[in-house]
Amino acid sequence: MKKIINSPDAFVDEVIDGLLLAHGASLVAASPDKRALVRAGSPDGTVGIVTGGGSGHLPLFLGYVGTGLCSGVAVGNVFSSPSAEQVLAATTASDSGRGVLYLYGNYGGDVFNFDLAADLADAEGIRTRTVVGTDDVASASRERAASRRGVAGIVFAYKIAGASASRGDDLDTVARIAQAAVDATGTMGVGLSPTILPAAGKPTFELPDGEMEIGIGLHGETGQSRGPLESADSITDQLVEHILDDREIAAGDRVAVLVNGLGATPLEELYVMYRRTNQILQERGISVHRAFVGEYATSLEMAGASISIIRLDDELTELLDAPASSPLVGRF
Amino acid sequence: MKKIINSPDAFVDEVIDGLLLAHGASLVAASPDKRALVRAGSPDGTVGIVTGGGSGHLPLFLGYVGTGLCSGVAVGNVFSSPSAEQVLAATTASDSGRGVLYLYGNYGGDVFNFDLAADLADAEGIRTRTVVGTDDVASASRERAASRRGVAGIVFAYKIAGASASRGDDLDTVARIAQAAVDATGTMGVGLSPTILPAAGKPTFELPDGEMEIGIGLHGETGQSRGPLESADSITDQLVEHILDDREIAAGDRVAVLVNGLGATPLEELYVMYRRTNQILQERGISVHRAFVGEYATSLEMAGASISIIRLDDELTELLDAPASSPLVGRF
Repeated sequence: MKKIINSPDAFVDEVIDGLLLAHGASLVAASPDKRALVRAGSPDGTVGIVTGGGSGHLPLFLGYVGTGLCSGVAVGNVFSSPSAEQVLAATTASDSGRGVLYLYGNYGGDVFNFDLAADLADAEGIRTRTVVGTDDVASASRERAASRRGVAGIVFAYKIAGASASRGDDLDTVARIAQAAVDATGTMGVGLSPTILPAAGKPTFELPDGEMEIGIGLHGETGQSRGPLESADSITDQLVEHILDDREIAAGDRVAVLVNGLGATPLEELYVMYRRTNQILQERGISVHRAFVGEYATSLEMAGASISIIRLDDELTELLDAPASSPLVGRF
Repeated sequence: MKKIINSPDAFVDEVIDGLLLAHGASLVAASPDKRALVRAGSPDGTVGIVTGGGSGHLPLFLGYVGTGLCSGVAVGNVFSSPSAEQVLAATTASDSGRGVLYLYGNYGGDVFNFDLAADLADAEGIRTRTVVGTDDVASASRERAASRRGVAGIVFAYKIAGASASRGDDLDTVARIAQAAVDATGTMGVGLSPTILPAAGKPTFELPDGEMEIGIGLHGETGQSRGPLESADSITDQLVEHILDDREIAAGDRVAVLVNGLGATPLEELYVMYRRTNQILQERGISVHRAFVGEYATSLEMAGASISIIRLDDELTELLDAPASSPLVGRF
């Protein structure tokens, strides 16, 4: 196991300690266990946005607490949901009396705990709304799109919903806009190697050297096909075409693109994938408003990448372009 | 080989194509082969700063062309120096008539080609000065500090020299300040797995699973010791103590810290290392002005990390804090 850690049990708490030591001017603990964190200065009169999920995906989820982004986060153990109490702590520390949007990826444990936290918040007089990220087009058919997993495309929703909250929109508007961002986004990934969980010390799945899994999930969930590793262009073609067909993105549309590294894949390779993505979009008459290339949602040290594409209307474009920054992701 | 590429021969050119497609508003090709790139709007009346080196280290070197940073870069093949002609193309496209600083890491091929480019620039009436990064404290003894390799600590020099050029300083001043930044910085790394070069298809060196190499270079150069993988705290202690002793950083000093991932090491683990770094500095009475944690200088998909520490005086602090941004690194 090639990990720079102390003990698996202490791992997440030590990560948070390091984060707070590095970025204490921007991020503040909102619970004694430090598993609920909020933006410094929160609540600030705007609608709160609370996200959360398992650890092991940095900069997701923690890294999207910032200006023009989320107000708070609940941090679970590696690949495990945070508790309802942790979500509630982030909620109460985020609420300005205008309510809180829960915006997180669609996984069973997270849905259970965020829903429970919503009940607890309601009992405290805090109104919540929930929008779950369901952008992984490989994880279920179009007919069952609402059951899809949430992956890197949630970054678009953070930026768009965060801008909506920042400009003073009310909770129902922020929720409507977040849902519009989720609905307009499709993501698909490719995995080249598994992840090793610190506590288990073993790979989360088996993938022989020289093979790839198209459609893999952010925790190594089974994709839609496995086979010998293909060229960057061939992989990119499969991912992009699937997303465009699924989200019905066609000539004349305007999009933003996110090419995301899953952990061990060099930034160089992501730019090779972006080059091909841009070529396909140009060939189809789809205009690229903006491109993001880097590690935005990882799976520890998994080798692989994902591509997310969002179809933009004028409102989503304006919100996507609003200034946003966080200590982990910078200004973007 | 777990790489998302097309052909090894086309790799670097396709990376650059992707970069220019994604960031064409900020980065501009300055030579027909696109291996010389400059900041959009260059030259702009300030002293130019040209860097460069082999590919495979993103965001180094390309990623540090930006506002308040370098004005231009020459891009070599993977782990290979750019040519003198490529350096010259970046130089002529960066020069406002006030001269150009060459600021790059200390490797034989790079020194040879930058020196040759300096002669060619001189023949064209462009004045240059050279400062080489020599921050890798493990690569040679203190007595031979000028022969050390340059690694991630050059990021401090980019930011500090870039701020000096941005405020209008002349070439001699920018060079003096860049040298002061280099002299104040020490870096030391740890490697947990080798890198595979796209063209060779084989690991650059052998490192058995479960072992680590302390003091490893950015291309897998031999470090100062190899042994069983230790805990994050033990590794961090060795790196930080060596740097502090070497750079004579002691109680009462003010520093900035950069914990850098070499490619495959999760951001989570870098924060565990930062946590311990901060603890050591606090214990020694050294104040941390600012911390940078992330991937700033990589070695393709190498697992491992490095720690850089710079001792700051008032001038270096002010320059380090000046605004800087680039499309690859963001605003930092």
